[in-house]
Amino acid sequence: MTPFFRRLLAACVASLVSAAALLAQTDPLPSWNDGAAKKAIVDFVQTTTTQGSPKFVPPAERIATFDQDGTLWVEHPIYSQVMYCLERVPAVVKAKPELANVEPFKTVMSGDREAIAKLSMEDLEKIAFATLFGMSVDDFTAEATKWTSSAKDARWKRPYTELTYQPMQEVLKYLRANGYKTYIVTGGGQDFVRTYSERVYGIPPEQVVGTAGATKYGYDKDGRPFLTKEAKLVLNDNNAGKAEGIHLMIGRRPHAAFGNTAGDQQMLEYTGAGDGARLMMLVLHDDAKREYAYGPATGLPDTKVGTFSQALYDEAKKKGWTVISMKNDWKKIFAFE
Amino acid sequence: MTPFFRRLLAACVASLVSAAALLAQTDPLPSWNDGAAKKAIVDFVQTTTTQGSPKFVPPAERIATFDQDGTLWVEHPIYSQVMYCLERVPAVVKAKPELANVEPFKTVMSGDREAIAKLSMEDLEKIAFATLFGMSVDDFTAEATKWTSSAKDARWKRPYTELTYQPMQEVLKYLRANGYKTYIVTGGGQDFVRTYSERVYGIPPEQVVGTAGATKYGYDKDGRPFLTKEAKLVLNDNNAGKAEGIHLMIGRRPHAAFGNTAGDQQMLEYTGAGDGARLMMLVLHDDAKREYAYGPATGLPDTKVGTFSQALYDEAKKKGWTVISMKNDWKKIFAFE
Repeated sequence: MTPFFRRLLAACVASLVSAAALLAQTDPLPSWNDGAAKKAIVDFVQTTTTQGSPKFVPPAERIATFDQDGTLWVEHPIYSQVMYCLERVPAVVKAKPELANVEPFKTVMSGDREAIAKLSMEDLEKIAFATLFGMSVDDFTAEATKWTSSAKDARWKRPYTELTYQPMQEVLKYLRANGYKTYIVTGGGQDFVRTYSERVYGIPPEQVVGTAGATKYGYDKDGRPFLTKEAKLVLNDNNAGKAEGIHLMIGRRPHAAFGNTAGDQQMLEYTGAGDGARLMMLVLHDDAKREYAYGPATGLPDTKVGTFSQALYDEAKKKGWTVISMKNDWKKIFAFE
Repeated sequence: MTPFFRRLLAACVASLVSAAALLAQTDPLPSWNDGAAKKAIVDFVQTTTTQGSPKFVPPAERIATFDQDGTLWVEHPIYSQVMYCLERVPAVVKAKPELANVEPFKTVMSGDREAIAKLSMEDLEKIAFATLFGMSVDDFTAEATKWTSSAKDARWKRPYTELTYQPMQEVLKYLRANGYKTYIVTGGGQDFVRTYSERVYGIPPEQVVGTAGATKYGYDKDGRPFLTKEAKLVLNDNNAGKAEGIHLMIGRRPHAAFGNTAGDQQMLEYTGAGDGARLMMLVLHDDAKREYAYGPATGLPDTKVGTFSQALYDEAKKKGWTVISMKNDWKKIFAFE
C-alpha cells in the first residue's frame, strides 16, 4: 500500500470508529431492544420537543409520571415497603409490649414465614398504621433511610434500591434531558419513597406523589416545632386517587405516564384524555427468568395483595397504549447484570 | 485638547458609563432602599450560594416559600379571591334559583355594599363552598382565568394581577437566579392561584401550595375522564396548616420564608427551626399613602376577616426575623408606578 492509501484507510477507519462512538453515545436507550416500545418513546420525545412540530409541548408543560412498584423497580413477591413495615414490628412491640399477644403482631413476631405470607390486606394495614404513624417526621425519615440503605432482597441479595430497572432509569434520564419533569406517582407511602427517590432515581422529594397521611404541627419541650405523622389518610394514591393526586400535587395533566397494574389505569386514562401527543405505557412482567412473570403474562396476581390487571391490558389494547415486554424489549433488567 | 487626550477622555467616560450600567445591572433588588431588609436578603443569598461558604446550601435544597395575600400582592380591603366568590354568586343563584332567598346569598344579590362588607367569616365560607366547588376542574379553571384577566381593583382600576409588589417580584427573580425554587404557600385556594401563578409570578402551578379541596374522578357521557371539585377540605393551608402543607406538597423544609400575618407564623417558625442559614421575613403594611396601613403598624386588623398579627411581630423581634417596612424599604410598590 502506498503511504497515501495507508493514510486514507486510517482516516476511514477513524471516522467509522467515531461514527460508531457517536451512535452509541446518542442512543438514549441503550438497554432497549429495537421495537415498538422503544420507538414509541423516541417518537414521543422527538415529536413533543422539536420546535415547529405540530405536537410540540412547551417546556413548562412537560410532565411525565411513573408508578414505582413494578414499573421502576421490583414489586414481587412483596412490596419492599411492606417488608419495611414487617421488619419494624419488633421495635413497635418493644415500645408497646401489649401488642405481642395481639394479631397480626403476634404472627409477625413468631417469624413463621408461611403464616406471615398469609396475612390479609386488613392485617397488613394494621401493621402499616402501627409502623408508619405516630412518630415524628424526622424520626421516620431517619428510620426509613437506615433501612433502605441496608435491607436486602432475598433473591438478589442486594439492597432493594439496586433493583430498579435499568431501561426505565434510561427513560427517566432521556425525558429529563429533553426538558421533562419526571414524577413518581406511587401507591406506596409518599414519605417513605421520598427518603431515597433523589439518590435512586434522580427524582427530588417534591416530585414524589404517594399515599400520604396527615401530619400534626407541635412543639417539643424546648419550643422547637416539629411534625408528627398521624394515622389519618390525606391521599390514597391508587386507582382514581392517582389522577386526583396528580391534580392535587402537580396541578397539570401529564403528557406521559407509565404503570403496570390496575392501580395505574386511571392515571393512564387521565393522561390520555389530554390534547396533543400523549404517551401511555405499561410494563408487562413476562420474564420469569430474569425477573418475574405474573399478571396478564401468566394469569397470576400482580402482587401478594392479589390484584389482577388483565382488564387493564385489555383496555390498553383497545386504547392503543404501548405494552413493554420485559422479556423482549429489554436487553438487560438491572444495572448490575 | 490634543487628539490623544480627547481619546483618553472619551475612553474614561465610556468606561465610567459601562461601570455604572454594570452596577445598575448587577443590583438584583433595584426597587429596594439600602437598609437592614435588603441587606438580609443579599447576605442570605450570598452566604447560601457561595461555594465553600460554611452555610452553603446545595442547589437541590434551595427552597423558598412565599405567602401570597399581603406578601406578594395587595390583600386589603378584601382578598381578591373573596371578590371572585362574591362576583360568582349571581351565576350560582341562576343555576340554583332557590338560593336567591337564602342568606348569605340574598345579601350578596342585593348589591348592598355595606351589608356585604359585614358578612361574617361563616357567611363567606358558605359563599366560598357554593362558588368554588361542585364543578369540574376544567370549568373552574376556565371561569377563574376569565375573571382574573378582566376583574379590576376598585382603588387602582387595574387587574388584581397587576397589584403585585415589584420589590417582591425582584426577590422571587433574585432567588431563582441563584438556584432557589420559589413556592407560593397561600391560605387562598390552590386551584385558584394556580390559574395565574406562572403568568403573574413566574411560579408554575406545581409550586403553588394552597388551601385545597378533594376532587372526584369520573367519566362524562363519552367515557372521557374528568375531575370534579368536591366540597371537602384536604388541606387548610393557614397557620399550622402551612407547615403541614409544606411537608405534604414539597417534603423539604424551606431555607427562606416570607409572610405578613398570623397565618404565616408557623411557616416561619418551621423554616427557622432548620439548621444552617435561614431567612424569615415579614412584610409590614405601614404605607397608608402608597398602599395601606394596618396590622401592627396601626392596631387595625390585617384583613376584612379581622386577624391581628401584633403577636407575630412581637415574636419576630424576639426571634430576630426581619421586618420589611413597605414605607421605608421599598422605593416603589408597583411596577406601574
